[in-house]
Amino acid sequence: MITSRLPHVFFGGDYNPEQWPESVWLEDMRLMREAGVNLVSIGIFSWAKLEPRPGEYDFAWLDRIMDLLAKNAIFADLATASASPPPWLARLHPESLPQNASGTRYFPGARQHYCPNSAAYKSRAAELTRRLARRYKDHPALAMWHINNEYACHVSECFCDVCAAEFRVWLQARYGLIDELNRAWGTAFWSQQYSTWNEILPPRKAPTFCNPAQQLDYKRFMNDSVFELCLSEANILKQITPGLPLTTNFMGWFKPLDYFQWAKALDFVSWDSYPDPSLGMSEVANAAANHDLMRSLKGGQPFVLMEQAPSAVNWRTVNVPKPPGLMRLWSYQALAHGADGILYFQWRAAQAGAEKFHSGMVPHAGENTRVFSEIKQLGHELKKLDGILDSRVPAQVAIVMDWQSRWALELDSHPAPLQYVQQLRHYYDAMRELNIAVDFVAPEGDFSPYKLVLAPALYLVRYGGAENVRMFVARGGTFLTTFFSGIVDENDTVQTGGYPLLLRDVLGVWVEEWDPFPPGRRGTVQVHGSRDLVACDTWGEVVHLCGAKVLATFADGWYAGKPALTLNKVGEGRAFYCATQFERGFTLGLLENICADLKIAPPLEKIPSSIEVCVRSKPEADYLFVLNHSDMPQTVKLQKWKGVDLLSGKKAAGTLKLGPFGVAVIESK
Amino acid sequence: MITSRLPHVFFGGDYNPEQWPESVWLEDMRLMREAGVNLVSIGIFSWAKLEPRPGEYDFAWLDRIMDLLAKNAIFADLATASASPPPWLARLHPESLPQNASGTRYFPGARQHYCPNSAAYKSRAAELTRRLARRYKDHPALAMWHINNEYACHVSECFCDVCAAEFRVWLQARYGLIDELNRAWGTAFWSQQYSTWNEILPPRKAPTFCNPAQQLDYKRFMNDSVFELCLSEANILKQITPGLPLTTNFMGWFKPLDYFQWAKALDFVSWDSYPDPSLGMSEVANAAANHDLMRSLKGGQPFVLMEQAPSAVNWRTVNVPKPPGLMRLWSYQALAHGADGILYFQWRAAQAGAEKFHSGMVPHAGENTRVFSEIKQLGHELKKLDGILDSRVPAQVAIVMDWQSRWALELDSHPAPLQYVQQLRHYYDAMRELNIAVDFVAPEGDFSPYKLVLAPALYLVRYGGAENVRMFVARGGTFLTTFFSGIVDENDTVQTGGYPLLLRDVLGVWVEEWDPFPPGRRGTVQVHGSRDLVACDTWGEVVHLCGAKVLATFADGWYAGKPALTLNKVGEGRAFYCATQFERGFTLGLLENICADLKIAPPLEKIPSSIEVCVRSKPEADYLFVLNHSDMPQTVKLQKWKGVDLLSGKKAAGTLKLGPFGVAVIESK
Amino acid sequence: MITSRLPHVFFGGDYNPEQWPESVWLEDMRLMREAGVNLVSIGIFSWAKLEPRPGEYDFAWLDRIMDLLAKNAIFADLATASASPPPWLARLHPESLPQNASGTRYFPGARQHYCPNSAAYKSRAAELTRRLARRYKDHPALAMWHINNEYACHVSECFCDVCAAEFRVWLQARYGLIDELNRAWGTAFWSQQYSTWNEILPPRKAPTFCNPAQQLDYKRFMNDSVFELCLSEANILKQITPGLPLTTNFMGWFKPLDYFQWAKALDFVSWDSYPDPSLGMSEVANAAANHDLMRSLKGGQPFVLMEQAPSAVNWRTVNVPKPPGLMRLWSYQALAHGADGILYFQWRAAQAGAEKFHSGMVPHAGENTRVFSEIKQLGHELKKLDGILDSRVPAQVAIVMDWQSRWALELDSHPAPLQYVQQLRHYYDAMRELNIAVDFVAPEGDFSPYKLVLAPALYLVRYGGAENVRMFVARGGTFLTTFFSGIVDENDTVQTGGYPLLLRDVLGVWVEEWDPFPPGRRGTVQVHGSRDLVACDTWGEVVHLCGAKVLATFADGWYAGKPALTLNKVGEGRAFYCATQFERGFTLGLLENICADLKIAPPLEKIPSSIEVCVRSKPEADYLFVLNHSDMPQTVKLQKWKGVDLLSGKKAAGTLKLGPFGVAVIESK
Repeated sequence: MITSRLPHVFFGGDYNPEQWPESVWLEDMRLMREAGVNLVSIGIFSWAKLEPRPGEYDFAWLDRIMDLLAKNAIFADLATASASPPPWLARLHPESLPQNASGTRYFPGARQHYCPNSAAYKSRAAELTRRLARRYKDHPALAMWHINNEYACHVSECFCDVCAAEFRVWLQARYGLIDELNRAWGTAFWSQQYSTWNEILPPRKAPTFCNPAQQLDYKRFMNDSVFELCLSEANILKQITPGLPLTTNFMGWFKPLDYFQWAKALDFVSWDSYPDPSLGMSEVANAAANHDLMRSLKGGQPFVLMEQAPSAVNWRTVNVPKPPGLMRLWSYQALAHGADGILYFQWRAAQAGAEKFHSGMVPHAGENTRVFSEIKQLGHELKKLDGILDSRVPAQVAIVMDWQSRWALELDSHPAPLQYVQQLRHYYDAMRELNIAVDFVAPEGDFSPYKLVLAPALYLVRYGGAENVRMFVARGGTFLTTFFSGIVDENDTVQTGGYPLLLRDVLGVWVEEWDPFPPGRRGTVQVHGSRDLVACDTWGEVVHLCGAKVLATFADGWYAGKPALTLNKVGEGRAFYCATQFERGFTLGLLENICADLKIAPPLEKIPSSIEVCVRSKPEADYLFVLNHSDMPQTVKLQKWKGVDLLSGKKAAGTLKLGPFGVAVIESK
Repeated sequence: MITSRLPHVFFGGDYNPEQWPESVWLEDMRLMREAGVNLVSIGIFSWAKLEPRPGEYDFAWLDRIMDLLAKNAIFADLATASASPPPWLARLHPESLPQNASGTRYFPGARQHYCPNSAAYKSRAAELTRRLARRYKDHPALAMWHINNEYACHVSECFCDVCAAEFRVWLQARYGLIDELNRAWGTAFWSQQYSTWNEILPPRKAPTFCNPAQQLDYKRFMNDSVFELCLSEANILKQITPGLPLTTNFMGWFKPLDYFQWAKALDFVSWDSYPDPSLGMSEVANAAANHDLMRSLKGGQPFVLMEQAPSAVNWRTVNVPKPPGLMRLWSYQALAHGADGILYFQWRAAQAGAEKFHSGMVPHAGENTRVFSEIKQLGHELKKLDGILDSRVPAQVAIVMDWQSRWALELDSHPAPLQYVQQLRHYYDAMRELNIAVDFVAPEGDFSPYKLVLAPALYLVRYGGAENVRMFVARGGTFLTTFFSGIVDENDTVQTGGYPLLLRDVLGVWVEEWDPFPPGRRGTVQVHGSRDLVACDTWGEVVHLCGAKVLATFADGWYAGKPALTLNKVGEGRAFYCATQFERGFTLGLLENICADLKIAPPLEKIPSSIEVCVRSKPEADYLFVLNHSDMPQTVKLQKWKGVDLLSGKKAAGTLKLGPFGVAVIESK
Repeated sequence: MITSRLPHVFFGGDYNPEQWPESVWLEDMRLMREAGVNLVSIGIFSWAKLEPRPGEYDFAWLDRIMDLLAKNAIFADLATASASPPPWLARLHPESLPQNASGTRYFPGARQHYCPNSAAYKSRAAELTRRLARRYKDHPALAMWHINNEYACHVSECFCDVCAAEFRVWLQARYGLIDELNRAWGTAFWSQQYSTWNEILPPRKAPTFCNPAQQLDYKRFMNDSVFELCLSEANILKQITPGLPLTTNFMGWFKPLDYFQWAKALDFVSWDSYPDPSLGMSEVANAAANHDLMRSLKGGQPFVLMEQAPSAVNWRTVNVPKPPGLMRLWSYQALAHGADGILYFQWRAAQAGAEKFHSGMVPHAGENTRVFSEIKQLGHELKKLDGILDSRVPAQVAIVMDWQSRWALELDSHPAPLQYVQQLRHYYDAMRELNIAVDFVAPEGDFSPYKLVLAPALYLVRYGGAENVRMFVARGGTFLTTFFSGIVDENDTVQTGGYPLLLRDVLGVWVEEWDPFPPGRRGTVQVHGSRDLVACDTWGEVVHLCGAKVLATFADGWYAGKPALTLNKVGEGRAFYCATQFERGFTLGLLENICADLKIAPPLEKIPSSIEVCVRSKPEADYLFVLNHSDMPQTVKLQKWKGVDLLSGKKAAGTLKLGPFGVAVIESK
């Protein structure tokens, strides 16, 4: 359980009382109670209010709101308020403003206008954190800490001179000797050899493609720089309030931050989910994948949906509302994938500022509205779900997710502009269509819980990662990887002698050359034992066997007849290699067969494609979530499942009927 | 009459004799006389010639050309020459160069490279104006003043430190106390609260969306800053030549400048019209709308078409010429909508410079050309039209045009990227198809001349504007407004409690939530009393009635059955509310019915769609302009109209035949 | 012969041993010998290795590799290593970094990060050149010099203050008096008149279109600035190693550098050719055109293909490999068009750096690969072709190529965005389809070898160029030019009085006005003596005859019936004028007829369209190259040709069979 102070499914949202007169606060309390709110995030953008002038603090208003919350039995997820510095910081410390690769400064007027290596920002944010922690450490409303907010969402890289200096320090720690850096970065290319550390700069705007290893190290350095900010606040909080859980809100696939690294510093993972209601099932699958990823960051511990929109957002070009029922459905989707809390941005729709057209739990039009009604309905329903708290999502399949591989894969001047997440999604989506639960795992993470590990587009492979795969397969695991995997080491240096050098023995193949497909080109593949041709796209390559057997071959082009899909048996295990992107249906069938072989079964078989089913388990009970993602009623056969639908309170067995966007949570003991 | 010195329809163009040897000047005079030119704009880009070195003036060449003009009975619209400072200004005062939001300077080499708050620019431009006024105040050729040129067309915003300082002064004057600014800007959002004025900056490039009220105030400040430049020159001229009319050339819909505010400082409005001949009737309608807007800026007083192209322009990607007859037709369109003068850019096509491929009245190929022939024909025809001078365009319908609402509507992070002019055009174009004259009016302007006032997308409503509507309707007026109107106050702060708060009583509806349509989505509407469905696009919303009756309802989506079009009766008046963008034909029918009810009739009924008819009136006579916008002959029934076609000199009654791009101006006494 | 030291077809590539441990060098020597490599380019990006710290040189490694080359009978094309300065240069001399028009610096991290007017860069590059020349002047491996590399490919313009100062010096030399510059630039327009030289700046980012003559002069100045760099190194080399040929590698159509000017400073022309294998015959034609242009730069002397890709490149979005046979075919295409050497970028595919995914002669997977096999095959075949060395490509047709006209044509604010190369290609491609050899020639170049000279889109015509045309036609030549030719003089000043003034007498027509076509618009033309209409696009215009006769007229639009194609007879010669872009087939037929009239015949008549035939000749023999650009076998009738196919060693006569991408080189004595 995330905190024993609040042994319920968290329900609430970002609360910004400083934007409203105090007269509104009392109405807020009444409405929060009506809606069943038990937790609010406060103070996220309050720095300027808490420290209106440098060193001059004002906590009186926050005292009042914290007391009011306590009086109303609502807990606070209290922010460290460092997400957006007050205007005076930029005036006192112009060098604290971040700079892009062209040297353009980002000015105040929005939010997050700080260089992550700014000493002034860091010391003042730390001081504010310290004062907040000391002042509220014993406050009865305080349930947990919310560090900063969506770290790096707008400024994930800064290229200023301060960062340049810190980068050199970081590089010295990493490489020790300048010649080691020269070797790692391959600076013999294009006359880039450094003779002293102080010649090194961030990968600023250059005449053409920058050194890729320099770019990759800069992404690592920036991830580490921002992480240092988080650690610095976390350490202060841990010292002053050792018993309180802390988190910072993540953003799903967000590329710049290696969340596997970050999650270790947090007590629980929380994240912000904003699918576009105007898009279809692919957007639903994306949300599911993100929930699974967030759950996986701390080994399956429950996470919190820290922000979602009650209805429309404001930052897309066209921002459509969530039609009736969709907000509820997507909330249950989060719970189904392992969340123990559902919160929103934000409590009350703002009147002013850049997000005034973002929906609130209480809309501009007030409490007598559709949106607030749906909020209330959900808040009360959730009280029936305390049983799911701390249950886990059992998964026998994992997909490898490696931020470093992604950073490197998506650098410039590659054979083709492959997108890492798109490659993962091809396999994730197929598993989701099969309704088989998936975890994500780091390449050096623990593969032992899984029967099947998929590692699409794992471009950068470290020695430890290759060893991990090798041991997993040797011990009987089934492994699958795809084209353009295992190409480079951690310095983005190509491993010569036939790709993918470090995985060659496991896969039983080596690749001689690649044939990336221009947009629109499609190829065909002949599956052995079948007469039909299968379509493929994105990529082809010339594969040679060194142990594997061929399951399918390319059927056109100058390498027709050469392997497109192979299987290698190693000890107890097996390793598949996909040399192209197969059409969706083929991938689905391939994974279905593999799962059938491995006796990995979905909770329900052969259900309509718009139905999602998920299971959460704890020793005493299993919970089957059945989610209808269509706006039409659906009927689902429950097969072996029997129990009670916690939402309706009725027995569930045999056939389940779900209304449009309907949900059932069947407890089976 | 604009000036009694020149009691004729003005005819001429921009004249840049400094680009040609004096030998050409004599030929110019001969050709101008041949063409019937009676007015030329001179000196617009002559600063460097008039003040070749700082403080060193040379008026000799201008004396000669002014004398030559006088000798040839051609009047001068003399420019203050401040539109483009000489290169020496940037060298002496680098800080006079404007800066964009990213801090990039705009350098000399083109034109308009000055910061509108540059003290150096301002004082030197003023000094030049003063000297010009003193020197030529009694010159017989001088008919009027042309202040600067197309203010702000390339540089409408500057973000430099000088502007930042002036912005603070402007804000102090507006808000008095910093806390008042904090309230107005909603700085409690995102920790933007200012503790002192000197923390405030222009809305420079920031990590994400800037504070919208800051952005809006910056647009106001920039409009005011540029207006100050104009006022400064106008005041000098008014003092030295109190009897001479002055103008500056506007640019139609041009967004950055609030021309209603500007027009007050001018003696007459003039503008530059450059429709693209490669586009169809929508471009013709756009020109018509702009003429009507320009006429409306000073309450219907005649305006001047200060610039149009004799044939092609040079600044589009592909610049097509005007085919034979089109230049003449479009000139008459300007007169039909209230112009008392037709001028061109420019007299003689240039040999050098960035506009050398812009057509001239005298083309590169000289006088024996199609273009010069058409110029001559028109110049001589216009002599027959002295009667129309100072006549007015009677209109019973007005469309509200509010620059501030437009600035605010088109800020970022809105529900959808609505374009203000596009919204106005939907209604304007329907009125134009009905051939019913339309004025534009400011939201706090005088509505009393009108039976019908349309206010599409009036997003920002000030208290005075709402009162104006309320009184108009109470006194029997018919008012129509549309979705996303009345959302915010003048600080861009949302008015909570059900939109549009300030117009709720007039409209008899309130709106709970919006459903902007993604591109390509279309909806349907059921009109009461009709069996057919009407298509709609752009927007849907959930409307509740509080007094109005429903005329049509949404026919699909989750708010099917809710109002899409309502009518509220208030006292003598009526107010329509459109909750979506109806398909063109429906809007046309709606307005046709409203006009029929109000007994607002077009000058001619049921004429072909490519025919435009307009009326100008004065006590002694009415003038019916009939314009054939197609390249095919057309026949028009004149119905009740009888008179003399001033162009052909023939009696006109019964049936009128017009050739391709043909025109008739029928005087009816 | 380029150098008597190496009397064979050059074969090899860029060799970067500094990227590899010395142990690999020995393997390199073995593989080079196996592949028949006789020449490698070395040192191109070795500056940082040769001068690791300012003034501290290290030639030991280069000594070793040069000795190794000599020992293995491989020659060195030794680079001056100035293409990419070491990181220390930017640290010592930040002002040496180039700046774009907005003032943004380009930083180190890639390559070519130097301002072409940087004194620091220039002196240090010169010193390194001097030391290299002195050290290796007598080395037995040294065959030739490779100055810098792909000059200006990433940074073709710099706008920094140093360049501004140098630009003023350049302008003073060109114009002498400031008033002469004012006249040439037409600064009377937009108040741009300069009173002193030091007011002049580069055409930096300005509020709108910069002065076109200023832009054009800046392109000239930048071309000259970069050329000065080349000259400075060439002069050092000529002094120290007077007997050794020197080159720098060009880039085909590359716009910023006037290669006709540059070629004069080189002993032979070399260039880098990178067609995209995913594109079709148009890409093949483009490569052919570039080969012909490169050959023409030094009057037909053999050139060297200095770089091509063994298979895929890395810098496109999607980089497809060359399928089997294509690399060989394209190599022979270069020889067929006049090359005496075939080299690659690069010898060994790199493991690190921005080009690690560019193919190498030795791929990542090593020597047992398709690519290395094809390299070896070709290397050995080429030994049979020593006979072609120094033979020439006889051409009776030339196309005028003028860099200055191109620079001016492609400036902004023109009637339409015509692309110079696209206009040339329309005519070049037709000639290529006819298999008739084409030279390119500068407008003031020697037209006397040609019967037919084509000059499409020759927008800027200098007096000498017009004279050249006039004399060519007078002496019996056939000349063809097209719309928008002869519009401006060398200052981009329009020649008034009916376009194209300077060519009016030759063409017998004058043009009154233009009608550029918006995208998608097509017109029709009536050919006299034919009943069918011919399609046209891009442009129409109003043409008047003054001596020419009409061959075709426009068939639609308001100038229907006016000339679209004319022919003028002048003395012995003829001049065609095309007032529009005819559909491809018509242009082909027109040129075919003209060639038939002039008795210009292709080496083979009526061959399949995927077959390219070219002839190289020397006094003792002719060489017929037959190239099959399709991936299907083809049969070609050899007609009058008889001889020996040098590749197969067999007699060739009658019918020739070519495999997919097959080639024959038939020697006929």
